Amino acid sequence: MKRFLAVSTLALLAPSFAVHGDPAPVSDTAALETTFDKAIDPQAIGGWIKTMAAYPNQVGSPHDKANAEFELSLFKSWGWKANIEKFDVLFPTPLSEVLETVGPNPFKATLTERPIPGDVTTTHTDGALPAYLAYGADGDVTGDLVYVNYGTEQDYKTLERLGVSVAGKIVIVRYGQVWRGVKFAEAQSHGAIGCIIYSDPGDDGYALDATYPDGSMRPPQGIQRGSAMNITYHPGDPLTPGIGATPGAKRVSLDQATNIQKIPGLPISYGDAQALLARFKGTVAPAAWRGALGVTYRVSGGPAVHLAVKSNWDLKPIYDVIAMLPGSRFPDQWVIRANHHDGWVYGASDPMSGQAALLAEARALGEMARKGWKPGRTIVYASWDGEEPMLLGSTEWAEEHAEELKRKAVIYINTDENMRGFLSALGSDDLRHLINGVANDVKDPETGASLADRLRARTRLRAFDHGSSGQNGSEGDRKTSENAEIPLRPLGSGSDYSSFIDYLGVPSVDLRFTGEASNEGTYHSSYDTFEHHSKFVDPGFVYDALLAKVTGRLVMRAADEDLPIVHPIGLADAMGRYLSDLKRQTDMARAQAVTQEGLLRDRVFQISADPTITNAVPRPLQAVPAFDFAPMDMAVKHLMASAKTYEAAFSAKGALLPQDKKRQLQAVMQDIDQTLTSDIGLPERPWYRNLVYAPGKNTGYSAKTLPGVREAIEDGRWDDARRYIPLTAKVIEAYAARLDQANRILN
Amino acid sequence: MKRFLAVSTLALLAPSFAVHGDPAPVSDTAALETTFDKAIDPQAIGGWIKTMAAYPNQVGSPHDKANAEFELSLFKSWGWKANIEKFDVLFPTPLSEVLETVGPNPFKATLTERPIPGDVTTTHTDGALPAYLAYGADGDVTGDLVYVNYGTEQDYKTLERLGVSVAGKIVIVRYGQVWRGVKFAEAQSHGAIGCIIYSDPGDDGYALDATYPDGSMRPPQGIQRGSAMNITYHPGDPLTPGIGATPGAKRVSLDQATNIQKIPGLPISYGDAQALLARFKGTVAPAAWRGALGVTYRVSGGPAVHLAVKSNWDLKPIYDVIAMLPGSRFPDQWVIRANHHDGWVYGASDPMSGQAALLAEARALGEMARKGWKPGRTIVYASWDGEEPMLLGSTEWAEEHAEELKRKAVIYINTDENMRGFLSALGSDDLRHLINGVANDVKDPETGASLADRLRARTRLRAFDHGSSGQNGSEGDRKTSENAEIPLRPLGSGSDYSSFIDYLGVPSVDLRFTGEASNEGTYHSSYDTFEHHSKFVDPGFVYDALLAKVTGRLVMRAADEDLPIVHPIGLADAMGRYLSDLKRQTDMARAQAVTQEGLLRDRVFQISADPTITNAVPRPLQAVPAFDFAPMDMAVKHLMASAKTYEAAFSAKGALLPQDKKRQLQAVMQDIDQTLTSDIGLPERPWYRNLVYAPGKNTGYSAKTLPGVREAIEDGRWDDARRYIPLTAKVIEAYAARLDQANRILN
Repeated sequence: MKRFLAVSTLALLAPSFAVHGDPAPVSDTAALETTFDKAIDPQAIGGWIKTMAAYPNQVGSPHDKANAEFELSLFKSWGWKANIEKFDVLFPTPLSEVLETVGPNPFKATLTERPIPGDVTTTHTDGALPAYLAYGADGDVTGDLVYVNYGTEQDYKTLERLGVSVAGKIVIVRYGQVWRGVKFAEAQSHGAIGCIIYSDPGDDGYALDATYPDGSMRPPQGIQRGSAMNITYHPGDPLTPGIGATPGAKRVSLDQATNIQKIPGLPISYGDAQALLARFKGTVAPAAWRGALGVTYRVSGGPAVHLAVKSNWDLKPIYDVIAMLPGSRFPDQWVIRANHHDGWVYGASDPMSGQAALLAEARALGEMARKGWKPGRTIVYASWDGEEPMLLGSTEWAEEHAEELKRKAVIYINTDENMRGFLSALGSDDLRHLINGVANDVKDPETGASLADRLRARTRLRAFDHGSSGQNGSEGDRKTSENAEIPLRPLGSGSDYSSFIDYLGVPSVDLRFTGEASNEGTYHSSYDTFEHHSKFVDPGFVYDALLAKVTGRLVMRAADEDLPIVHPIGLADAMGRYLSDLKRQTDMARAQAVTQEGLLRDRVFQISADPTITNAVPRPLQAVPAFDFAPMDMAVKHLMASAKTYEAAFSAKGALLPQDKKRQLQAVMQDIDQTLTSDIGLPERPWYRNLVYAPGKNTGYSAKTLPGVREAIEDGRWDDARRYIPLTAKVIEAYAARLDQANRILN
Repeated sequence: MKRFLAVSTLALLAPSFAVHGDPAPVSDTAALETTFDKAIDPQAIGGWIKTMAAYPNQVGSPHDKANAEFELSLFKSWGWKANIEKFDVLFPTPLSEVLETVGPNPFKATLTERPIPGDVTTTHTDGALPAYLAYGADGDVTGDLVYVNYGTEQDYKTLERLGVSVAGKIVIVRYGQVWRGVKFAEAQSHGAIGCIIYSDPGDDGYALDATYPDGSMRPPQGIQRGSAMNITYHPGDPLTPGIGATPGAKRVSLDQATNIQKIPGLPISYGDAQALLARFKGTVAPAAWRGALGVTYRVSGGPAVHLAVKSNWDLKPIYDVIAMLPGSRFPDQWVIRANHHDGWVYGASDPMSGQAALLAEARALGEMARKGWKPGRTIVYASWDGEEPMLLGSTEWAEEHAEELKRKAVIYINTDENMRGFLSALGSDDLRHLINGVANDVKDPETGASLADRLRARTRLRAFDHGSSGQNGSEGDRKTSENAEIPLRPLGSGSDYSSFIDYLGVPSVDLRFTGEASNEGTYHSSYDTFEHHSKFVDPGFVYDALLAKVTGRLVMRAADEDLPIVHPIGLADAMGRYLSDLKRQTDMARAQAVTQEGLLRDRVFQISADPTITNAVPRPLQAVPAFDFAPMDMAVKHLMASAKTYEAAFSAKGALLPQDKKRQLQAVMQDIDQTLTSDIGLPERPWYRNLVYAPGKNTGYSAKTLPGVREAIEDGRWDDARRYIPLTAKVIEAYAARLDQANRILN
């Protein structure tokens, strides 16, 4: 086991613990973490989930406020300095909504979810909102339905080939592949007048397993609510972009809010979707567009429907709970760890599973602090409100405290819903070593293997299974995956880390367990209850407790380390990959345009088409010019060289540095990730200031790396691409230059 | 347009046509083929389909015999020498059959298909057989159902990983991927006691389009009958392997017949399958195993069912119609063209669409012969009986006339069911040039492009679409597919060419149109009717007529050419590919075994498994030894060199050779494809004598090239692989040596 704490810290801690009667002398990180683990109680976690998820707890509900106050009292009782920070945000809630067919044999969508026999929570319907899509527009429209599959940009290109337009129509789109806000925005930008989103049983219903209450999957009447905010421009309160939504804040008018959609929409169940899709008479959908309903999926010839939504657009209060354990040596260096506390209805898995883990950690850390442990850095625990509408609590807090956070934040550690399975870690690539350290030290309760070994085993097995069907499977692959650190996946959006990494440039990580049991079948429905979570998602709260153990270790290691916690070699490795991906993608786009030109010239589309099926010739692709990637090549080369020098010097000399040198090194390294941001931000969306990581404009939650360049090339904005190549190179050079400063201290 | 006929032939023909008042002087192949095309009448084709598919016409039915006699009279009326050749074959027909659940709420499968409103043919049910699987065993068994997906070898490995055995159970398997006889044999070899095969709507039902009569796809009550013969050993009459099933033939006893299955089975509709699959309670099936029924597909915990089948095992008569137009110059060189005439019920698409095209050709050729055209070689038109039970008519005829065919057959041209779309050509690779010549000269009626250009367009578009999703799409690919001859795909089994290519080594080709409209939704059901074919599969009989034009050209070009029709460069090209595929496949199998050894050693299967789901550690793969492929490498190199020499000399000098040299060349080249056969045949299945092409042991209809070696390596029979490397090299060397003889004549 890796020793992690500096000796000086250990010397300080050992007697304190001894004084309070702890049996084992705390001689190292391992002992400290063993103490921590013992304080993590799965039953307490279950109890908090049960309490906090007992009643509807969306923004503005009484139970949401009560939960915040409950947590405040817990933090205080555990010895934390805690307070509630309130903001007033625009959060529309439905006043009336209707979806019905017009004409004979009318069909009306239910839009509510009846209680489930045997699940007491689902009977607590007082104050629950009906299913809706927050930040869809108010509207009253009538039009024919068009089925648009997952509603991606590519899906609309396919529709165009099939000769089907959604202009003036209402789309029906299935959940999946891209975030719902993107589905909404794509529908709108293609001229649709309304957007119905449904959960196909092929994605989270009976196709996967028995449905709730017999199994974990979505029952026919289950509805996935959610935010349809257009986060292309920014998350958070629509009326206060870039500033905290405090009472006196200067607000834009509703008309000026860029992240509110322009058309109305509703989410529906697959029970309702089946009735609508069965009425389609037109063109058969492509094979990849078929879900698991017992109908012929068709794109056109859908029934005419009437869709009307009217909302209350008043401001509503949100309550962020902020708790601190002050740092003993570096009080102005903050280790921030957070999870949201608002749900869509009861929210047992989302967010209470992660929230309860957070509480378990806070209790354990509070106890340890009472027994004498003093974290080196200040630990900030935050319980956000308003995440579901779209990261309201975290964004407003980050915007309000931006300057302080830029000075103080060392790391932002996020969790949200939690499940059973494998550790999922998304994060800033220079946190790779820190995360791997924890993943190597924590054991999976099911298999006894370390979390890291379990992930490596899965990687090897997937490569093998893939190889079995003809791609690879060489001994070389095995060796690589056996030895390598587990790479992090890049952060996009969809949970509260967005402001920290995208807006502030604070190195961030998002953690959860996933891949075995899941909450997908009840996600954002009235059936995400304590009963469902405890029966199907994490029986015994074993993985919720495990999440606390992982996250708590990260917090303690980050708080007690007096050297920089980022390891730039992780970023340098990843950046090399991101850049070569970008160049390959560009070359492919160029080759495709050239190939397509030949296909168009030779009438290949016409000659190979079935004339009985509309098969429109696609629009010509823009020719892709050559780009001069040299500035980025040079920057990445610089970064790699500096990172290697740092890594070597840090391993050899870091721990031996005198205390003042350590402080100097930390001063240089503390905000190094902020060098990756630029005040100019991304093209057309300046709130997103990080030029290495961003949520994709057209993917919503999924990340795009080097987004200023990559998305410009994807969208055919050549001037933007040319402009952002040097801008992106510049932030990489800035990171490398900062590293060079650090290297001068180290050497 | 390529001139094809030798000048001498044209000189002979021109006056004859003139005498009979044909307006245009026949100056070349093009004019001859224009005359031929004019004689192809789509309405007559439709009429023959309607007549022959009006009543049940399976082996032994009155209408089957009547059809043979009807065709005999047509051939004779068109001036052909024709006769019926009768054989007596073992063809079981059901006396009784039952499939029902045992226990409460009993469910009984229907096993019959009710008439379709508006389809008169479907009311002609007198004499129709119920749905069954011919050559399944008689039996009366009861057992729990296990769902085994497509029932492939790989599927049983997956089941083993899931901890599910079929021993003592009855499997329910969906149609698709491999031929039904393989599904049956796999079930049997894994210890199942019965085999239920159903048509999943995801494969040919409502998932694809509206069902008959609203659309072309399979309705809920539609059942795919068919043969379940174990063709691993041989097709044709089970009692007379290797000899014709003539009245006096020496027959083996039923017990000794190797190609009859040992367990009972039945095919069912998806209406019935839904009722059975909905009763499963066990392990959820893997995602790839899901069909389109509205149920959770599960592998285990199926209901107990009672399955009983009893058949009449009497010999039944089959009637092959054989018609000849004698060759004027080379009467002992036969161009054989055939299609079967028996169906499973009415058989409008299968086989009558191809059969009617054959009749159209025969009438046109007969007319042309009456007007003075004299084919150089003898043209043999055959209408086989008993193809559906498993190639009975063609196999018995080929076995009975084996010696004569080996001496005389120049080419075997097969058709069967026909649809609308793209030309599909499977065949001996040295026929590539001949097929491409026709495909370049015949225009697609929908697009006006040549059949070859349409195929090339599709290839280019697929490469582009594939590239779009990230694989390639380079300009290089485009150039290749623009210029190359269309490769043929290798012949496996499933239609009457099998005896010709696999047993006799006669160069063969199988042609159809496919890829747009299709008959898959009524395939082998009572709904494959004239009404269905003419409404959905080929309205106006346009592609049936087109098939006649393609096939007729092949017949005329093959019959009138006085030079060899095979172009060995096509085989040399393909053989290089087959061998490099084989070596790559072997290397991959070796790498997989090595990788798996590491995974097993490191407990990767256990560590990455979800312990709540049975996930058995797989059996260790056999280590794959090194094989000495040098004899095959040398043989393929020899073949390529000789083929290039031949191609160059043939193009430069072939047409200029004096007549006696042409005859010498033909004498050497005529049976060159027979050099690819060996009396030893394939391991464990000596009836399959071709060492380059065979139907896969584990795929049924799909081909395996270089099968003696490839299947031995796939099955881990290393000694067989070592033995068949030199044997296979020897037949390739023999082909090359024959070419060297030809080259001496040419040079």
